[in-house]
Amino acid sequence: MILLDIINEIKKADTIVLLSHLAPDGDALGTLTGMYKALKKLDKKVYAFIDDQIPEMYSFLPNIDKISLPFDVEADLALIFDCAEKGRLGAAEKFIESCPVTANIDHHISNTLYAKLNYVDTNAAATAEIAYQIVKLLGLDLDKEVSTSFYTAILTDTGGFTYESTTSMTHHIAGDLINNGADFALVAEKVFNSLKFNKAKLLGRALNSLILYKDGLVSYMEILKKDFEETGTDLSHLENIVTYGRNIEGVEVAVLLVEKDGEVKVSLRSKDRVDVNKIASTFGGGGHIRASGCTVKGTIEEVKKKILEEIFKELEV
Amino acid sequence: MILLDIINEIKKADTIVLLSHLAPDGDALGTLTGMYKALKKLDKKVYAFIDDQIPEMYSFLPNIDKISLPFDVEADLALIFDCAEKGRLGAAEKFIESCPVTANIDHHISNTLYAKLNYVDTNAAATAEIAYQIVKLLGLDLDKEVSTSFYTAILTDTGGFTYESTTSMTHHIAGDLINNGADFALVAEKVFNSLKFNKAKLLGRALNSLILYKDGLVSYMEILKKDFEETGTDLSHLENIVTYGRNIEGVEVAVLLVEKDGEVKVSLRSKDRVDVNKIASTFGGGGHIRASGCTVKGTIEEVKKKILEEIFKELEV
Repeated sequence: MILLDIINEIKKADTIVLLSHLAPDGDALGTLTGMYKALKKLDKKVYAFIDDQIPEMYSFLPNIDKISLPFDVEADLALIFDCAEKGRLGAAEKFIESCPVTANIDHHISNTLYAKLNYVDTNAAATAEIAYQIVKLLGLDLDKEVSTSFYTAILTDTGGFTYESTTSMTHHIAGDLINNGADFALVAEKVFNSLKFNKAKLLGRALNSLILYKDGLVSYMEILKKDFEETGTDLSHLENIVTYGRNIEGVEVAVLLVEKDGEVKVSLRSKDRVDVNKIASTFGGGGHIRASGCTVKGTIEEVKKKILEEIFKELEV
Repeated sequence: MILLDIINEIKKADTIVLLSHLAPDGDALGTLTGMYKALKKLDKKVYAFIDDQIPEMYSFLPNIDKISLPFDVEADLALIFDCAEKGRLGAAEKFIESCPVTANIDHHISNTLYAKLNYVDTNAAATAEIAYQIVKLLGLDLDKEVSTSFYTAILTDTGGFTYESTTSMTHHIAGDLINNGADFALVAEKVFNSLKFNKAKLLGRALNSLILYKDGLVSYMEILKKDFEETGTDLSHLENIVTYGRNIEGVEVAVLLVEKDGEVKVSLRSKDRVDVNKIASTFGGGGHIRASGCTVKGTIEEVKKKILEEIFKELEV
């Protein structure tokens, strides 16, 4: 069984590097910080690395400061969490090519199985569910910090236990994390009830741009470069904004376009029937059936036209 | 053990009436509809009654139509759920006085133990957790409808598993309800993720007006008459908007002013230390320490000046 092979590699390794994807979310950061703290209990050198900015909203995570900038380490083992394809590792991609053993631990159906050991459990609602199993299989303690990290990962990747991906196992693990000291009320306050002033201003800009298409089946929002400039925000403030479009009554597909230099970042959400992973894949992106993204070259007007065309086509199927 | 006494009374009774409190919430309605469906599996007559309107947002609950208006039934047993005092039963209070056996099943610490049998478990995050145990002790099936009802009760009474009252037992039960078919994604969608398009546009307007005062201790937003006109909204769309101001990091007092004819509606929220009830009282309004409101004559500029002065004074105390 591949998970046990990974456990054995962890036991054998002296130096372990933990990696995750660009534009890290709660699952990436919660899993990495939790695994970092758990593996530090073994007599090994452990490093964690994500080649991107860490969203300010996750600064409360225990050990978040251990996820450091590019480093120069020779590791025996790279554990890559929540990363569907190696291209999403950024600078760490080069690194895993030189690492003797690589393990790709994920729950995305789109995972390209790019590592030596690939453990992809699409039944897991969050990669942290698999990380939890790894910690259990290693016989390590779930302390307050590990529990708070994993709980954050699960809470965010299940939208507060509301996404279809949530299972009784998700709740079982959440209950166990609570029993082990997860500061779940704090996490919820930070993740759901905490808003930065400039993020609020950016949300206001996005909502001002909100339009419905196709009799309200599609909601569209856009954020222009000037919105970032005038509100003092950047890409790290985007999280959840597209959800407002998705939550509107009657909407099936929500789009958020974000203007960058010569290209546009596209976030897609769907409610019941449209596979937005398929749409994002058309443009070289990916994700889940109900939440996907891609980056498309062109002006915001050009990309808007292309994306909406693709969505309208899917709605007609 | 009192819960077993209640189980025995249920087994003995031919006619059972299920009751809950006025202004019913998700726990009252989810528990009653779930117990109704579960007890109907026994060869008994079961009735459910709440002396109040059922909020539109809970119309999706299975068997919600079985909670009927005042009735004329002679029952052997009244099971009263989630009701801390009999005064909150409305017309049903009179009824329980004539019922041979009454059982008060609740989780509120303030429960006045008004029935013949009183089972109050303050460790339960929702009364539905106790109802779940009753169904298990009766050896009844948890079908899709019962599970969906109880899940709704738990989700709403724990604020989506975020309140401190949530325990590993809450998650254990939620997981079991999911395994028994609870339509948890639908419930979350109905309860948490539903936004009207024009409400979203109004929120955008409010956020555009957002300003901070006193080094970020006070957040200010305003909604003008033209905002209502241009977004097709009215006062019924204001719910929660002031919460965005309250949730901003560092903010202690949040103000939302709403322009009306010749007067301004003021909503106040505070986080930790300012008594906004006191401030609202100064202007003839009131509410709670952390959430209050008032209506003040004058233009928006005049009222803004007066309200902010009063808040700044309180902050200096």
